[in-house]
Amino acid sequence: MNESMSHPTAPTWRLKLAELMDSTPVQRIITALILINAAILGLLTSADIVREWGWLLLPVDIFILTAFVIELALRFAARGIGLLRDPWAVFDCLVVGIALVPASGPFSVLRALRVLRVLRLVSINPSMRKVVQALLASLPGMGSIVMLMALLFYVAAVMATQLFGQSFPEWFGNIGASLYTLFQIMTLESWSMGIVRPVMEEQPLAWVFFVPYILIATFMMLNLFIAVIVNAMQDAQGPDPEVEARAVREQMILDELKALRAELAEMRRIP
Amino acid sequence: MNESMSHPTAPTWRLKLAELMDSTPVQRIITALILINAAILGLLTSADIVREWGWLLLPVDIFILTAFVIELALRFAARGIGLLRDPWAVFDCLVVGIALVPASGPFSVLRALRVLRVLRLVSINPSMRKVVQALLASLPGMGSIVMLMALLFYVAAVMATQLFGQSFPEWFGNIGASLYTLFQIMTLESWSMGIVRPVMEEQPLAWVFFVPYILIATFMMLNLFIAVIVNAMQDAQGPDPEVEARAVREQMILDELKALRAELAEMRRIP
Amino acid sequence: MNESMSHPTAPTWRLKLAELMDSTPVQRIITALILINAAILGLLTSADIVREWGWLLLPVDIFILTAFVIELALRFAARGIGLLRDPWAVFDCLVVGIALVPASGPFSVLRALRVLRVLRLVSINPSMRKVVQALLASLPGMGSIVMLMALLFYVAAVMATQLFGQSFPEWFGNIGASLYTLFQIMTLESWSMGIVRPVMEEQPLAWVFFVPYILIATFMMLNLFIAVIVNAMQDAQGPDPEVEARAVREQMILDELKALRAELAEMRRIP
Amino acid sequence: MNESMSHPTAPTWRLKLAELMDSTPVQRIITALILINAAILGLLTSADIVREWGWLLLPVDIFILTAFVIELALRFAARGIGLLRDPWAVFDCLVVGIALVPASGPFSVLRALRVLRVLRLVSINPSMRKVVQALLASLPGMGSIVMLMALLFYVAAVMATQLFGQSFPEWFGNIGASLYTLFQIMTLESWSMGIVRPVMEEQPLAWVFFVPYILIATFMMLNLFIAVIVNAMQDAQGPDPEVEARAVREQMILDELKALRAELAEMRRIP
Repeated sequence: MNESMSHPTAPTWRLKLAELMDSTPVQRIITALILINAAILGLLTSADIVREWGWLLLPVDIFILTAFVIELALRFAARGIGLLRDPWAVFDCLVVGIALVPASGPFSVLRALRVLRVLRLVSINPSMRKVVQALLASLPGMGSIVMLMALLFYVAAVMATQLFGQSFPEWFGNIGASLYTLFQIMTLESWSMGIVRPVMEEQPLAWVFFVPYILIATFMMLNLFIAVIVNAMQDAQGPDPEVEARAVREQMILDELKALRAELAEMRRIP
Repeated sequence: MNESMSHPTAPTWRLKLAELMDSTPVQRIITALILINAAILGLLTSADIVREWGWLLLPVDIFILTAFVIELALRFAARGIGLLRDPWAVFDCLVVGIALVPASGPFSVLRALRVLRVLRLVSINPSMRKVVQALLASLPGMGSIVMLMALLFYVAAVMATQLFGQSFPEWFGNIGASLYTLFQIMTLESWSMGIVRPVMEEQPLAWVFFVPYILIATFMMLNLFIAVIVNAMQDAQGPDPEVEARAVREQMILDELKALRAELAEMRRIP
Repeated sequence: MNESMSHPTAPTWRLKLAELMDSTPVQRIITALILINAAILGLLTSADIVREWGWLLLPVDIFILTAFVIELALRFAARGIGLLRDPWAVFDCLVVGIALVPASGPFSVLRALRVLRVLRLVSINPSMRKVVQALLASLPGMGSIVMLMALLFYVAAVMATQLFGQSFPEWFGNIGASLYTLFQIMTLESWSMGIVRPVMEEQPLAWVFFVPYILIATFMMLNLFIAVIVNAMQDAQGPDPEVEARAVREQMILDELKALRAELAEMRRIP
Repeated sequence: MNESMSHPTAPTWRLKLAELMDSTPVQRIITALILINAAILGLLTSADIVREWGWLLLPVDIFILTAFVIELALRFAARGIGLLRDPWAVFDCLVVGIALVPASGPFSVLRALRVLRVLRLVSINPSMRKVVQALLASLPGMGSIVMLMALLFYVAAVMATQLFGQSFPEWFGNIGASLYTLFQIMTLESWSMGIVRPVMEEQPLAWVFFVPYILIATFMMLNLFIAVIVNAMQDAQGPDPEVEARAVREQMILDELKALRAELAEMRRIP
C-alpha cells in the first residue's frame, strides 16, 4: 500500500527517503523500539520501579517517543500529506500524538492512553496488519443485526427504566444504567442471582420481561456469530479452480465434436 | 408485498392513496417521526426532564401518536381490511393500539409497552424487515429440538420440585419456581456457588440430578445452535448455478454425438 | 422398526394384536393418557392441590398407570420377549416399572423418578424419536475427545486434591469434591471470584494451575463442539445426487463415442 | 512412527528388542500398569486410605515406577539416543522423570505433578495420540490471532493498572493482577457485579474502558473459534475423489474423439 503512494513525479530525494523508511533495517529498528517501549511502559506502572529506575526509564521513554516523532516526520517528508490517505498512518499519528498532549490536570487520563503506542506493532507488521484487516472486514456483514440489536437494547432499556427504575435506581434508574444492566444480563453474568431474583422479590412477574429478553438477545447474538462464521467460511472456500478447468475441457470436447461433424458433412458432399 | 395487495378493481383514489402511502417521501416522514418519538420516549423516562420539558415533549408525543393513527387509517382506507393479511401491518396496528389504551390503574404496566412503537422502524425499513424475517425463518428448523427441551424442562422441574421443594421453597417450591431455577442453571449462571452447593449441603447427592441435567441441557442447546448454523449455511450456499450450466453443456455434447451417429448411419445407407 | 419384529410364523391373533397396538387410534389414546398423566404429576407436586383434589387425581394417576401396564403386557403378548430388542420398548418398560416399585423408606427418591413416564411421549412419537436418535448418533463421534477430557479431569482432580485439599477441604477435600469443583470451573461459573481468588489468598501461585486448566478444558470443549458441528454438517450435505447423474451422463457420452468409432471402423472394412 | 526410528544397520539384538517393546503384549502390560498406577495415585490422595492401606499402595507405586524406568531404559537401549527425536518419548521421559526428583522441602509441589504419569495413557494409545496431535495441529492456525490477543491483553493491563491500580490494588495493583483480572473479565465471570460495578462506584466512567474491552476480547475469541472451525471443516472435507475421477473420464472422452477424427481424416485420404 505504501509503495504506491509516493507521487510518480516526486523529486528523487523523496523517493529515496520513502524507500529508506520502508526498508527492512529501518522497520526492524522501529519494531525493536516499540518492543522496548512496551517493556518500559509496563515497568513504569510500578511506583517502586519508577522510584528506583525512573532516572533511566523516563529519559529512554522520551528518547523513543522522539524517535517515533522523527520517523513520522520523515515519512511525511517522503510522501507529503497524502500519507494520511493510509488509515494505518493516521493510526500511527494518533497514538504518537496522544503522548505529546500534556497529561496533567483534567487530561491525566490521557497518560493511560500512552500505552496505545504499543499497538504500532500491528501497524508496522504486515502479517498482523492483515489479521486486523480480516477482523475488520467481517464487521460490515454484522451491520444489520447490530442495528437490530441496538434497537432491541434501546427499547428494552426504556421499558426496564419505566418498569423497575423507581424500585431499583442503581440498576435501572435511567436509560444509561438500564443499558449497562441489560448488557450485563445479555452476557448472562449474575443475571438471575444478582439482578432478576432481587427484582422478583418486589415485582414477582419481572421474569415475564427478563426471560424473553434473554432468549431474544442470545438468539440474536447466536445469529451474529453465525453471520460471521458463514462469511468466514465462504471466504475460506473461495472460487473452485476445478470448476473453470472443467468448463474449458467440456468446451474443447464440444469444439472437437463440431469439427468432426463438419468434416463428415464435407465427406458426404465430395463423393 | 404491499404493492400486490390493492385490489385490481379498486377505485382510482384508493390506488393513488396506496401509492402515496408507499412513496419514499411519506415513508421518510414516518421514519423521522418514529426516530423523534424514540428520543422523546427515552427522555420521558427521566422525572427531571418531564418536570422541565414535559410541556413540550408530551404534546409532541401525542401529536406523533395522532400522526401514526392517521397514517394507519389512510392505509386501511387505501387497502381495506385486507391490509391485515400483511403481518407487518398487524404489528403496526398492535404497537400503535397499545398507546391508545388508557394506562392507568391496573393497566399502568401498559405505559412501558408504549416504547414498542419504536419497533415500527423495523416494519417500515425493508432491509431490517428482511433481517427479522430471516431470523424468524430459522425458527421452524428448531421446532423439534425446542419441543424436546420443553419436555426435558417440564420433567426436570417436576423432579426438582419433589426432590428439593421442601428444603428450598424459594428455588424449587413449585413447578414455576423450579422452571425458572432450571432455566438459570441452563444458562450456567451461579449454578454451583448459588444453587447446587447450598442444596448439596443438605442433600449431598444433589449433584446426581444437577450435573447430568447440565450436560443434557447444554448438549441440547449445542444441537439447537448447530441446527441453526447448518440451516444458515445451506441457505448461504444456495443452488450452484454452475451445476445447471454443466448439465446443459453435457446434454449439448450428447445431442451433437447422436446427430453425428445418425449422419454416419445415413452415409452407410446411401452408397 | 416394530413391524418387522413380529415373527413371520406367529399365530394370527398375535399379528392382529400387534397391528392393533401400532394402529393410529391406540397410539393417540396412549399419547392422550401420557399428556393427562404429565399434567396430573405436575399438579401433584403442590401440597395444596393434593389436599383439595387428591381424591380425584390420585385414582386417575393409578388408572393411567394401570393402562400403561396393560398396554405393555399386550405388546409383549403380541411380540413375545423379542420386544426387548427394541431399545425404545426397554425404555418404556423401565419408566413404567419405576412407578411400580413401592416408593417408601429408603426408596422415597424413586417417587421423583415417576415423572420420567412423561418421556414416553418421545418413544411413542416417531418424529421425536428420530430427533433423539439423531442426538444420540452424534455421541460416538465425540468418544475420543470425551475420553481425553475424562483423563484430563482425573489428572487435574488428583493434582488439585494434593495441592489445595488441605487448605480448602470443602472444594478440594477429596477426588470427588475436586472433580465437582473442576467441572464448575470448566463451566466458568464463579471460577475466579468464587474459587480461585480465595485460593490465591493462601497460595498466590494457584493461578499457575487454574488458568492453564481453564484454557485446556475450554479448548477441548471447543473441539468437542466442532466435532459435533462438522459431523452434523457432513450429514446435512449427504451424497450429492448431481454427482451420480453427471457420471451417468458422461458414461453415456463415452458409450456413444465408442459405438460411433466401431461403426466407422466397420465402414472402412466394407468397401 | 517408532518403527522407522531403529537404525537400519543396528545390531540384531537391538532390532529384536525394539520389536519386543512395540509388541502388543508389552504395550498392554504397560497400559495396565498405567491404569493401576492411576487408581493408586487417586487413592493416595486420601489420608485415611494412606494410613490403612499405605503399606500396600506405596510399594506397588514404587514397583510400577521402577517398571516404567526399566521400560524407558530398554527403549533407549533398543533405539539409542535418537529416541528423543520422537516428542512422545520426550514426554514419557519427562513425566517419569518428575517422579524421580525427591519431592521434599521446596520441591514438595512436584509430588502433585507425579499424577502426570497417567497421561502416558495418551502416549501409549495410538488412537488417543492421534486425537491429541489433531488438537495440537489446530494450534498454529490460531497463532496470529493469539499474538494479537496477547498484545491486546498487555495494552489493556497497562491501561487498567494506571487507571484503577490505586483504588483497587487487589484487582489492578500491578500488571500481573491486571492480566489475571482481565482474563477473568474475558471469561465473563462476575465481570459486572464482581468487578466493574464496584469500580464504577468510585470511577463512574469505568464502563468506557470495560465494555469496549469485553466487546473486543469476545469478538477476538469468536474469531479464534471460527479459525479453528474453518480449519477443522476444510480438513474434514479433504480433496474430493470424484473431481479427479471426472477429469479422467473427460480426458478419455477427448482422447476418443481425437482418435475418431484422425480415423476420419485417414478415411478421406484413402479413397
